[in-house]
Amino acid sequence: MSKEVKSESVSLCPLDTAAAPVPELLCIFGTGDLGRSLGQRLLQSGYRVVYGSRRPHSCGPLPQGTQVMSHAAAAQSASLVFICIHREHYDFLETLAPQLKGKVLVDVSNNLKKNLYPEANAEYLQRLVPGAHVVKAFNTLSAWALQNGPSDANRQVYLCGNSADAKQAVTETATKLGFTALDRGSLSAARELEDFPLQLFPEWRLPLRLALGLNITFYVYVVVRDVVYGYVDQGKDISFRMMVSLPNKVFPIVSLIMLSLCYLPGVIAAFLQLYRGTKYKRFPDWLDRWMLCRKQLGLLALGFASLHVLYTLIIPIRYYVRFRIAANTVSEAKLNKTSEFDTTMAWRTDSYYAMGILGYGVYLLLGITSLPSVSNALSWREFSFIQSKLGYLTLFLCTFHTYLYGWNKFLNPSYYKWYTLPAYMLSLVLPSVVMVLRLLLLLPCVDRTLTRIRQGWERTDPEDDSKKSLLT
Amino acid sequence: MSKEVKSESVSLCPLDTAAAPVPELLCIFGTGDLGRSLGQRLLQSGYRVVYGSRRPHSCGPLPQGTQVMSHAAAAQSASLVFICIHREHYDFLETLAPQLKGKVLVDVSNNLKKNLYPEANAEYLQRLVPGAHVVKAFNTLSAWALQNGPSDANRQVYLCGNSADAKQAVTETATKLGFTALDRGSLSAARELEDFPLQLFPEWRLPLRLALGLNITFYVYVVVRDVVYGYVDQGKDISFRMMVSLPNKVFPIVSLIMLSLCYLPGVIAAFLQLYRGTKYKRFPDWLDRWMLCRKQLGLLALGFASLHVLYTLIIPIRYYVRFRIAANTVSEAKLNKTSEFDTTMAWRTDSYYAMGILGYGVYLLLGITSLPSVSNALSWREFSFIQSKLGYLTLFLCTFHTYLYGWNKFLNPSYYKWYTLPAYMLSLVLPSVVMVLRLLLLLPCVDRTLTRIRQGWERTDPEDDSKKSLLT
Amino acid sequence: MSKEVKSESVSLCPLDTAAAPVPELLCIFGTGDLGRSLGQRLLQSGYRVVYGSRRPHSCGPLPQGTQVMSHAAAAQSASLVFICIHREHYDFLETLAPQLKGKVLVDVSNNLKKNLYPEANAEYLQRLVPGAHVVKAFNTLSAWALQNGPSDANRQVYLCGNSADAKQAVTETATKLGFTALDRGSLSAARELEDFPLQLFPEWRLPLRLALGLNITFYVYVVVRDVVYGYVDQGKDISFRMMVSLPNKVFPIVSLIMLSLCYLPGVIAAFLQLYRGTKYKRFPDWLDRWMLCRKQLGLLALGFASLHVLYTLIIPIRYYVRFRIAANTVSEAKLNKTSEFDTTMAWRTDSYYAMGILGYGVYLLLGITSLPSVSNALSWREFSFIQSKLGYLTLFLCTFHTYLYGWNKFLNPSYYKWYTLPAYMLSLVLPSVVMVLRLLLLLPCVDRTLTRIRQGWERTDPEDDSKKSLLT
Repeated sequence: MSKEVKSESVSLCPLDTAAAPVPELLCIFGTGDLGRSLGQRLLQSGYRVVYGSRRPHSCGPLPQGTQVMSHAAAAQSASLVFICIHREHYDFLETLAPQLKGKVLVDVSNNLKKNLYPEANAEYLQRLVPGAHVVKAFNTLSAWALQNGPSDANRQVYLCGNSADAKQAVTETATKLGFTALDRGSLSAARELEDFPLQLFPEWRLPLRLALGLNITFYVYVVVRDVVYGYVDQGKDISFRMMVSLPNKVFPIVSLIMLSLCYLPGVIAAFLQLYRGTKYKRFPDWLDRWMLCRKQLGLLALGFASLHVLYTLIIPIRYYVRFRIAANTVSEAKLNKTSEFDTTMAWRTDSYYAMGILGYGVYLLLGITSLPSVSNALSWREFSFIQSKLGYLTLFLCTFHTYLYGWNKFLNPSYYKWYTLPAYMLSLVLPSVVMVLRLLLLLPCVDRTLTRIRQGWERTDPEDDSKKSLLT
Repeated sequence: MSKEVKSESVSLCPLDTAAAPVPELLCIFGTGDLGRSLGQRLLQSGYRVVYGSRRPHSCGPLPQGTQVMSHAAAAQSASLVFICIHREHYDFLETLAPQLKGKVLVDVSNNLKKNLYPEANAEYLQRLVPGAHVVKAFNTLSAWALQNGPSDANRQVYLCGNSADAKQAVTETATKLGFTALDRGSLSAARELEDFPLQLFPEWRLPLRLALGLNITFYVYVVVRDVVYGYVDQGKDISFRMMVSLPNKVFPIVSLIMLSLCYLPGVIAAFLQLYRGTKYKRFPDWLDRWMLCRKQLGLLALGFASLHVLYTLIIPIRYYVRFRIAANTVSEAKLNKTSEFDTTMAWRTDSYYAMGILGYGVYLLLGITSLPSVSNALSWREFSFIQSKLGYLTLFLCTFHTYLYGWNKFLNPSYYKWYTLPAYMLSLVLPSVVMVLRLLLLLPCVDRTLTRIRQGWERTDPEDDSKKSLLT
Repeated sequence: MSKEVKSESVSLCPLDTAAAPVPELLCIFGTGDLGRSLGQRLLQSGYRVVYGSRRPHSCGPLPQGTQVMSHAAAAQSASLVFICIHREHYDFLETLAPQLKGKVLVDVSNNLKKNLYPEANAEYLQRLVPGAHVVKAFNTLSAWALQNGPSDANRQVYLCGNSADAKQAVTETATKLGFTALDRGSLSAARELEDFPLQLFPEWRLPLRLALGLNITFYVYVVVRDVVYGYVDQGKDISFRMMVSLPNKVFPIVSLIMLSLCYLPGVIAAFLQLYRGTKYKRFPDWLDRWMLCRKQLGLLALGFASLHVLYTLIIPIRYYVRFRIAANTVSEAKLNKTSEFDTTMAWRTDSYYAMGILGYGVYLLLGITSLPSVSNALSWREFSFIQSKLGYLTLFLCTFHTYLYGWNKFLNPSYYKWYTLPAYMLSLVLPSVVMVLRLLLLLPCVDRTLTRIRQGWERTDPEDDSKKSLLT
């Protein structure tokens, strides 16, 4: 029966001793901040705690109810030892090897940078104390979570180690502290676990930089074509358009380009496989890296599409728009001229909006299915159906939306200010290319060959064949 | 120490051999595409791999660093054997029974169709080699994931088998490959695991078909009543309304009907229990199936409601709407007539919009709580509170929104074109019925009886009672 | 081989008996509703079931295929016993202690209220039968889920107990029934598990009450300032504004205040740590509780911000707005006056909208990352980056949005109706305070001290120091 429960429930009769196990004793090496936080939490969860310290008599305040001893004495009193020491001071543990033999050592350390040392801290520890069972654990939690228990991004304790029993012991402690333990395999995974808390969206960097670059480029482009041109050519100050109108041109362009960049690497990979006649050769590194950040590209593109939606929907409440509409209506009323209703125009604009809405709807669906809990619940056939079939549908709808927006503007010379292309035209290049290439891959003869290659078939040239027989 | 880590970190000093276990040797039967992919991945994760082949000397290129032997020799060298062979060729394994005795056989096979064979592949394998421990695993992953490691819908390895030790061994391998293993129980779950990768949204089929049917029906209905009628009766071409205006009539109607179809089966079930006087009789099959797809019905309805929101919000930027507003204003200005401000109208339309927004807001909340990770974090009391209480609130708000939309239109004969009802009226039938039935169930006397029945009480007729005593 | 599979697949040849284990026999104490439901489900999953009953010959209808015996006889026939009895009747189990020795007892009971008894039901059971291995499990599932298998909020079986083997046995049964078992540690966690199904959003209560209070207060405030003032002062009936215009004033105000209430406690905590010179003193209770409901505050604020967005986007389709715009245009046309285009106004309003949209966009991102599955996939460094850096960005953008909305209104006396401040000004107080305090904390000298304190450093007064040495 743990301390915690005792304090809550008033036991009126003495409990049967068999049913109330004596609280387990755990050992912590290190009386620094981490050791103190962890000790506090262990005490609260019903453990007894003993600290191992270099200077047991002058190590600063420790949680009430804990003991402090020399490292050797502390190690011998418990079967599980938390190592809350910086890696730089690990070396003294070598001298404790006899006392630590057979103990479970929990390495909770992190480094300040990646690749600071040739081997992971936990592997170094295992090398210093070969007779102990080192388990890497708890290092992915924040000190706050170690002190206060699980919260949002601190629910899961990843652990790894070579001894299944040692991992089981650590798992039970983690569970008792309120965390969910996730086994990550043998101690060779320690480096990965040590890198985890250091990372800050590594797989988002490239897509974010790309998005930033595209946004800046196109923003400058449209500012020059709209605001600067308007000022130079007609002397009008329309700089206020920089807040809403121009971002609402840039965001959909960036979104469409990034969406097509999601699907371009897959198409390139298919052509590469066709050209090589095998799927067993590795793709070039740049293609591999590109394919691995497709999800991030797609989600960023969805973000920009959402901004485009919001920027579009506030159009009618903008002062500028209301002013222009009112001015038009007044001048119509004055001239007593009634403009003719243009059915083609109504068809075109309504189709344009409808494509945009449907495209955005399917896109949102793609976004929702890429939430971890949703994609985990799907079979990969379902997942690839959504990401491939519905993905291409999204690309088609959004591209068609842009073509309808353009309509016959490309015939009108006034759109080519300073001999530059309107920005929307530039955004159409990439998606059009992707869709044409994709259609080529769907041709029966191409599709058949590709399917065979993906099922393991290899095109063999006679000379190539002889080489292979030498290799295997 | 695994190969992978060695290649990354440059070990400057020789490692203690005790700390560096010799890589485990695994065996793969079958040198086809799947076998090659799996072997590659196992090698990369630090295993040694040996292939078993019918023709060990002519089996095509295999990953560098692997060996290939006869089946018998390969089986004896490892304690865990992956069976990467099509089920049709399993029968030869019967002759290997002596060599496979006590080994863990991992069945990774899938069939091309459901119910192709009377028993699951893994159960067939167990029957052929009764002395081995068959574990069904890895079959739910794509070949791509087997070769390249976990990705979105390929993180979890489901496994089942009769031997706990065998499952533990496979779990460790899966973990080392980077996957999360999920135990699905004894080998009798193998069929379920084999069907899983074949499924393509089975529980979404019925709701999707229903949504499609309703959409087409109502779309045709409103096209006839609006566009065709307008053309026939007044000779006007308003066909452009087919892109935005008419979908924006159809989507909310389909959404409201599907939302009420979510709550209708629960009400029917309650009345059935009241009528039967017991909860221990099974519901008819159609009702069971209906109740099982309520979540899908609700999510599709939410999708159509979202489309309705977007279609509504773009109304003021449509060319047609702007044209009409301008034309009205111009004619008002010309006639110098100022229309009176109608406070009732302002109240009615604002209430109508407010109900719609609030209804959509609660509806979104329902959708969010049905995300797997959110619903897992709720207790079932919380979940049923949201899905039932907030669900009926959504239904009420959306129905009220539609009634306010209709207002007194039902009094105006011009709305009954060609003696047909306006579409919105048709959409009100089902939700109104559901809410009336639900209110009946809330009557104290009905509610009391229903609660007792759901707590296990049974209404017993004298004759019925005598029958039961014979049965038990 | 389980019953279920047998009925599905037609086995043509007799199965090897070694491969087909005899179905396991489980025992259920109690023939009430819960016992019946559970028994049915166990039967369907391939177990044999025996009931223990006080009156084995008159205990009402039980699932076909089960046996019923006296408690003692039933207990001896199985190694795992489900206790489907109310806690009030547990006492008779004491007399069965000899028969239950070494058995696994699964306590599935729940209480009607929290804290009804001094100890958890499962702990009471363990005390009554000290020789048995009590496991608390299945109590978090609804009776419906026990009868029909896993569904949305009923996928996970939480269990706890002092014996690892007993928990393993229960885990296997749960898995076979289709659930995912989650180990919650020793039996001292039983009370937590027993409280779980009773809770109804406990951590949402305070934020919900706060939101309700704020909404009502500000709604009354703006109704008085707008509608009542308009009626009293100018005799106009603008009560229709209560449906859309006024909620659209209240929601953003409440949202902004609640968002700043998310960040205020963190700032207060930092100043408290600075003042105390240590991080090892507990925060006052009110601050702890406040910090624990920050997530809920933020999500509610996001909800109100979303309502504000929707209410704003429908502005141009409102009857009142269209009427006013048309009236303005008509009067302009009549007077033949053309108002000048105001570039400052265009800049200001466009900036105002842009800030709002960007703020809402970042806010949505915060909301998405607080979904359990997303936050689980983040390292805590990533999570705290998003929640802190992007959180303050959201607060800044939304506050700036409000300042731009206000602009120079504060100079205009007509806005101070009845000597009251416009509501938007009131909403600016708290976020402005939070941001100023936060900026103070970012001053290099303050930041340095705080960082040191958070790394475990303590400011020590000489007298304080002597006290400490006495304590430890």
